[in-house]
Amino acid sequence: MSNVRIERDLMGEKEIPQDAYYGIQTARAIENFPITGYPPHRELIRAFGFVKKAAAMANRDVGVLNKKIADAIVQASDEIIEGKLIEHFVVDSIQGGAGTSFNMNANEVIANRAIELLGGKKGDYMTVSPNTHVNMAQSTNDTFPTAIHIACLHLASGLTSSLHELITALEKKEKEFDQIIKMGRTHLQDAVPIRLGQEFGAYKRVLSRDLKRIKNSVCHLYEINMGATAVGTGLNAVPEYITLVAKYLAEHTGMPFKSAEDLVDATQNTDAYTELSSSLKILAINISKIANDLRLMSSGPLTGINEINLPPRQAGSSIMPGKVNPVMCEVINQISFQVIGNDHTISLASEAGQLELNVMEPVLVFNLLQSLSILQNGMKVFKEYCIEGITANRERCLDMVEGSVGIITAINPHVGYEVAARIAKEAIQTKRPVREICIERGILSEEELKVILDPNEMTVPGIAGADLLFE
Amino acid sequence: MSNVRIERDLMGEKEIPQDAYYGIQTARAIENFPITGYPPHRELIRAFGFVKKAAAMANRDVGVLNKKIADAIVQASDEIIEGKLIEHFVVDSIQGGAGTSFNMNANEVIANRAIELLGGKKGDYMTVSPNTHVNMAQSTNDTFPTAIHIACLHLASGLTSSLHELITALEKKEKEFDQIIKMGRTHLQDAVPIRLGQEFGAYKRVLSRDLKRIKNSVCHLYEINMGATAVGTGLNAVPEYITLVAKYLAEHTGMPFKSAEDLVDATQNTDAYTELSSSLKILAINISKIANDLRLMSSGPLTGINEINLPPRQAGSSIMPGKVNPVMCEVINQISFQVIGNDHTISLASEAGQLELNVMEPVLVFNLLQSLSILQNGMKVFKEYCIEGITANRERCLDMVEGSVGIITAINPHVGYEVAARIAKEAIQTKRPVREICIERGILSEEELKVILDPNEMTVPGIAGADLLFE
Amino acid sequence: MSNVRIERDLMGEKEIPQDAYYGIQTARAIENFPITGYPPHRELIRAFGFVKKAAAMANRDVGVLNKKIADAIVQASDEIIEGKLIEHFVVDSIQGGAGTSFNMNANEVIANRAIELLGGKKGDYMTVSPNTHVNMAQSTNDTFPTAIHIACLHLASGLTSSLHELITALEKKEKEFDQIIKMGRTHLQDAVPIRLGQEFGAYKRVLSRDLKRIKNSVCHLYEINMGATAVGTGLNAVPEYITLVAKYLAEHTGMPFKSAEDLVDATQNTDAYTELSSSLKILAINISKIANDLRLMSSGPLTGINEINLPPRQAGSSIMPGKVNPVMCEVINQISFQVIGNDHTISLASEAGQLELNVMEPVLVFNLLQSLSILQNGMKVFKEYCIEGITANRERCLDMVEGSVGIITAINPHVGYEVAARIAKEAIQTKRPVREICIERGILSEEELKVILDPNEMTVPGIAGADLLFE
Amino acid sequence: MSNVRIERDLMGEKEIPQDAYYGIQTARAIENFPITGYPPHRELIRAFGFVKKAAAMANRDVGVLNKKIADAIVQASDEIIEGKLIEHFVVDSIQGGAGTSFNMNANEVIANRAIELLGGKKGDYMTVSPNTHVNMAQSTNDTFPTAIHIACLHLASGLTSSLHELITALEKKEKEFDQIIKMGRTHLQDAVPIRLGQEFGAYKRVLSRDLKRIKNSVCHLYEINMGATAVGTGLNAVPEYITLVAKYLAEHTGMPFKSAEDLVDATQNTDAYTELSSSLKILAINISKIANDLRLMSSGPLTGINEINLPPRQAGSSIMPGKVNPVMCEVINQISFQVIGNDHTISLASEAGQLELNVMEPVLVFNLLQSLSILQNGMKVFKEYCIEGITANRERCLDMVEGSVGIITAINPHVGYEVAARIAKEAIQTKRPVREICIERGILSEEELKVILDPNEMTVPGIAGADLLFE
Repeated sequence: MSNVRIERDLMGEKEIPQDAYYGIQTARAIENFPITGYPPHRELIRAFGFVKKAAAMANRDVGVLNKKIADAIVQASDEIIEGKLIEHFVVDSIQGGAGTSFNMNANEVIANRAIELLGGKKGDYMTVSPNTHVNMAQSTNDTFPTAIHIACLHLASGLTSSLHELITALEKKEKEFDQIIKMGRTHLQDAVPIRLGQEFGAYKRVLSRDLKRIKNSVCHLYEINMGATAVGTGLNAVPEYITLVAKYLAEHTGMPFKSAEDLVDATQNTDAYTELSSSLKILAINISKIANDLRLMSSGPLTGINEINLPPRQAGSSIMPGKVNPVMCEVINQISFQVIGNDHTISLASEAGQLELNVMEPVLVFNLLQSLSILQNGMKVFKEYCIEGITANRERCLDMVEGSVGIITAINPHVGYEVAARIAKEAIQTKRPVREICIERGILSEEELKVILDPNEMTVPGIAGADLLFE
Repeated sequence: MSNVRIERDLMGEKEIPQDAYYGIQTARAIENFPITGYPPHRELIRAFGFVKKAAAMANRDVGVLNKKIADAIVQASDEIIEGKLIEHFVVDSIQGGAGTSFNMNANEVIANRAIELLGGKKGDYMTVSPNTHVNMAQSTNDTFPTAIHIACLHLASGLTSSLHELITALEKKEKEFDQIIKMGRTHLQDAVPIRLGQEFGAYKRVLSRDLKRIKNSVCHLYEINMGATAVGTGLNAVPEYITLVAKYLAEHTGMPFKSAEDLVDATQNTDAYTELSSSLKILAINISKIANDLRLMSSGPLTGINEINLPPRQAGSSIMPGKVNPVMCEVINQISFQVIGNDHTISLASEAGQLELNVMEPVLVFNLLQSLSILQNGMKVFKEYCIEGITANRERCLDMVEGSVGIITAINPHVGYEVAARIAKEAIQTKRPVREICIERGILSEEELKVILDPNEMTVPGIAGADLLFE
Repeated sequence: MSNVRIERDLMGEKEIPQDAYYGIQTARAIENFPITGYPPHRELIRAFGFVKKAAAMANRDVGVLNKKIADAIVQASDEIIEGKLIEHFVVDSIQGGAGTSFNMNANEVIANRAIELLGGKKGDYMTVSPNTHVNMAQSTNDTFPTAIHIACLHLASGLTSSLHELITALEKKEKEFDQIIKMGRTHLQDAVPIRLGQEFGAYKRVLSRDLKRIKNSVCHLYEINMGATAVGTGLNAVPEYITLVAKYLAEHTGMPFKSAEDLVDATQNTDAYTELSSSLKILAINISKIANDLRLMSSGPLTGINEINLPPRQAGSSIMPGKVNPVMCEVINQISFQVIGNDHTISLASEAGQLELNVMEPVLVFNLLQSLSILQNGMKVFKEYCIEGITANRERCLDMVEGSVGIITAINPHVGYEVAARIAKEAIQTKRPVREICIERGILSEEELKVILDPNEMTVPGIAGADLLFE
Repeated sequence: MSNVRIERDLMGEKEIPQDAYYGIQTARAIENFPITGYPPHRELIRAFGFVKKAAAMANRDVGVLNKKIADAIVQASDEIIEGKLIEHFVVDSIQGGAGTSFNMNANEVIANRAIELLGGKKGDYMTVSPNTHVNMAQSTNDTFPTAIHIACLHLASGLTSSLHELITALEKKEKEFDQIIKMGRTHLQDAVPIRLGQEFGAYKRVLSRDLKRIKNSVCHLYEINMGATAVGTGLNAVPEYITLVAKYLAEHTGMPFKSAEDLVDATQNTDAYTELSSSLKILAINISKIANDLRLMSSGPLTGINEINLPPRQAGSSIMPGKVNPVMCEVINQISFQVIGNDHTISLASEAGQLELNVMEPVLVFNLLQSLSILQNGMKVFKEYCIEGITANRERCLDMVEGSVGIITAINPHVGYEVAARIAKEAIQTKRPVREICIERGILSEEELKVILDPNEMTVPGIAGADLLFE
């Protein structure tokens, strides 16, 4: 028995491996697009399962699709949703044709599996046809975007959940480090004291806004364009079908999908993707800044700032024993750079839409799904292997505050600008603590300085030791 | 009498032109940063007027600033708000120092003007000091971001208003072109019919989402960090002052400003800017796609698509008489490219924040204010000189629909896929209209085809001429 | 028997699958960096084979590495070069640690394979140690960049060869289409005639410059920093070793490697990568423009420009029979967008270098190798499945030239600007050919017009039919 | 007497200010493109002077332009080259129309000035016509690119000269700091010693490559497309003219201009610009990394790394007396971000070329000229106000080396890995110097350590104190 079967289309015939669930159109795509070697994202494959299932049920309900065939399509789709048959999705992530090859790969796999379920043999498309049955009342131009929406929403949900946990971890550190007073720095130059907890609080807050931004931006993805068919006019798609397919999709995924108000608009515009990608880019920018801060604060240990310790995760050097590097921060920086670059590609692809369609969606979605995935993965390990294990070098932090000249700013209101400037000058020249000089010169007493230079006093709005002024 | 005066600071002395309202710190910035040759954006200068006025009033109210001096500062600030003294803001748009030179330029101009108002001579800083009085309880790190917020909000308001008018113009065209049937195209290849009005409707809709996005994204700018002083801890800034300055700013600008919940966060993070810039970038992407579509549809006139006519605005060629180019679309494309590039610079600057401050804000705000300005300017002329004057070539559009094979898709349900395919093939080979062949072959009558190929029927969801199926 | 073995390092112990050639440091990296799911690029793995082999031979030669161990390392490395053991390279493409995990993965796989070759069991690092022996006199900071250089050069060689073939294909079309006269278009508006061959000639020329640019830019990669050890100072690396390792690498790869003049510079700077990536980006920009042109010229077929036909590669639509899309051009556009986005990530990573090292190299090299690979793949299919099969619609092209008003520019010198303008006006209004009007009005004879409107005359510098002027 | 004159074109008439040298086409552009408010770059204006002068002389020589008119055009052009009339170049930097408005602005100003020189009044275009005479045998599509080439080459020459001086300044520091031993850092973590001079040497070297890259990339700009006319076919442009205009341009500018080999290619492709911009971007990336390093090394002064001092340039804070910020480094970072963003816009514009022309050149050239200018300005002040004044904190650097554990790497070969590891551990735990522990434990003598830990020994390839091993 031969290990290939022959399939035919308008352009001729091709040999297909006997055990392949995909068919000739997929085979053509394999030949045409040997580009990245990356198959479709797992979640995009599953999303096609949802789309084909809902369409089959809607077509069955409106009476245009035979119940037996519909049921077989539904069952095959369910297998895909469960993660089966995944190895038969073989078209490249970057491909021409606006996703037609993704759609046809799904149509063919589902058709062949449905044929088997109905007792037929793969390739027997009279039983179940990839186009006539599985793709009924559909077009790449509505199924592919809808599948993208589902996949994005699924991945975004994972990301927001990981991000939420990271925020919680930062909040714990905010509290844990609330009493660690340290030098604040602007321009990498000594400024005035701040509490380490305040810094982690700022990290928490900016990421909380990112969380909100991402959640807001995915909302637009609930509007889908199933029924748009070729250009959004819905030619040959019955209105009842359009309503039903959205209803089924919502039911099966648990996501509040609804039909877009204007299918022409929904078919040609990709701003829902650029908006989501922008949110991811902003998260990337913010998290990269945080990673940079942690690398700065943990620099050293002996010849750097060394205010905090990151948990060691792996040997840092094969040549210098004991060296440990901030690898979890570094991977966050790199994920961020990838996401920012991806956003660039997404922008280019989005701008390249023409008239009724954006044919650059494959590369767009490749980058968008990657950004969502790697950010989720990054947030998870960053929280677990870095943030949660950070410890503070309380004494080192305090020593630097005491040794700094910046605390003169707190003393200022108590002694006047001129005296303060004089003390500052002496402190820089002699490298002696401001506190010591003040006491020695009899300018302020040890008790007064204890109040004025109290961590909490110096790091909240107002004049530190204001009460002393009115005694 | 000399035409210069001598000013001094900690680093030495400098000659300042006698009639200059700025002082030595501005002069140092002029020397240090001869970079772009572009002075600060006009709206940023005005915004500093608002900031300094509100701070002076708040300081006066809490009793730390002498009323006479405060009033003079307020009056000088008002002049700046009115657009006076603008030529004395001379520091370069790209500068080191996190905006210190912008802030000091404002402090010095206001101080010198206030000195004059109090009867003194420029440079007599004992009367009004740029630092002690004009900058009282302030830092570059809170005044500069606050001024940026005001300037962005002002410009964004202009942009959204221009964008709104553009949307209205598109909506008019949507209605005007509602009955112009034309070929829809995907992949630049003939697809199925669509109405020109539907295309303009899609443009309207995507820009309406942009309008909403921009409006949403500026909301975060109402939170200001006045009172943060150096690093956000508010050291030496009295809480009453913080409350008052926000209140006054809201009052004077008519914008609902309030103090940020966490000043440390608000001082170091720049996500409000990246979010706004992202919104602008998405608008740029969408409007560029629209401009591209219009250039495609108006291509020709004799050897292109030629479905629409753009209003001629200027001679297109010095060598080919009568040539008219789609210049208003082209300028929109270019504005878009500029805005997308600006967003890139903004992202880089935002990511480069370190610890308690982002010192790259000058280049960030230079690009952000430019994006806001050029988009507003672009929307205005695009609407006025392009969109409003577009006319449709109704017959040309219809001819192409009739001559196309794509309409076979509408006939499909009435004659079956096989017959339809046969007609399509003949139409392509003979270049004769599908309609003609159908009638000639006796497949459908002229009356039936009138119903099936009716523009409205073919361009709304459902089967065109569905009633005929059940007669 | 257990299917795991226990390995230990300074941080503790870990279970390693018994059949895995990698060891504990790789296992830690797997745990730390579950980011993209993409293993190292195949060529990067092979490159490590070359690096480790050359280092082992150099260390053996200078007398610090036992010959038996060296030979085993060489043999294991050779297997990797041949493409074996590839599945044991499991660390993620995006990782913290400046490539340490890539290097350690290579060290461990080679050590364990060498141990086996010497009759030992995996994990018996007393026989061959990943650090002491395989990594001898090396650091991640010199081996990783060197491996990147080898991989880039290998892939660049494949790319330039594919690009060269594409250029040859374009040159054939330049000749084939030399006599196809068609309308030239600027601003998508009718301009003056041009020959289709000239357009393909312009494509050929710009890509020839790209070829040269890429070849120039890879030259810098021949300088390697083996022997730099940790920071480029070469601490503990004997000068003889440095010379030998470059010599062996050159010998084994056939590429003219030499030691960089300044190892400190070579260790911290990544401009060789950004320069290569820039060349790739420029190629992407140019090839994308060409793909866009081909999509424009083949648009239609019935309602577009339709000057050329692209070879059909797959069915374009599941809903519209017979629709064929320019999928090979579209995939080129998408590859270009990916490469441009990758360049962005590479720039970010390059700028993030700090002091003696750029720790962002993993994400940099991930993007750089991907760009090289997908461009090579793209060039290949673009040539084979698109360019070579393009045909011209000679009559359609000629009709549009004849029907256009642009050719009036050629007639201009013969009849004067005023007369020409009058003819042009009539032609636009009546949509009748300029040629016809000229003859009808007795302005020029059919014979004269034959000369003036001769394709070659109109499309080379000078006045078409200049001889007629002096008859 | 009226202060306006009336001018007419095919679209109607317009009032022009009486004293304006520009005419109606410029006036239309002013109305159409009120976008950035930035007039053309000064060097672009001068470049048009060169172009128009050379064209007039060539046209005169081939006998198509009246000598008297030609001479007047030459004289007017010379005035523009000298920097006069600059305020009459008023069209916006971002404009539709592929630069037609730039070209017409130049044509009109030169025509009106030539008219005056011939005794006529502005607007008397019968005397000298902007189109017929000043623009003779030219098109925007050849004059604008040629002017861009001239302007870029002029600015690039300024940039390379500033960059060369910066490199020289770095070389001086390399020598000056040759004996300053300090800790090398990778991952911001202590690594092994390095000399400060080596770091400055690495900066010098990477910028030297940038210098070479920029010089190489501008070479392509010597090829100009004068004579291409509308689409590069040279229709109506006499070959002698083409040769002459290149010859004159070379003569007048002192730059080796020559006619491009293929004018069709040269008219539609913009890779010469993207290549130059890429070189600038790579410089930006490298110089930004250097600026970052300097900011890191000068961080503190009391709570940072503090290895070097940057010259103070201006007060760093209005609230913290004595604070000085690394403003010259910060402005370099910002210039770099601007240049990188500009490169992005340039890439977008370049990719948007279509068929015979790239109509997005105005925004492309706006960004390219800006990048060239601000980089030149930045290099100059960076050298003068930063690099030249840097001083090293020799003792601080040495203390950190001595206090670090990293030097154990040098001791390693002398005592064996096990002993070294033990010393390292004790040093980290007790925070006592490695040197001290070695002596105390009798492991190495003070004399031996003097040799082994000698700065030069530790910072050049080989084993520090290798002679001791064989004593």
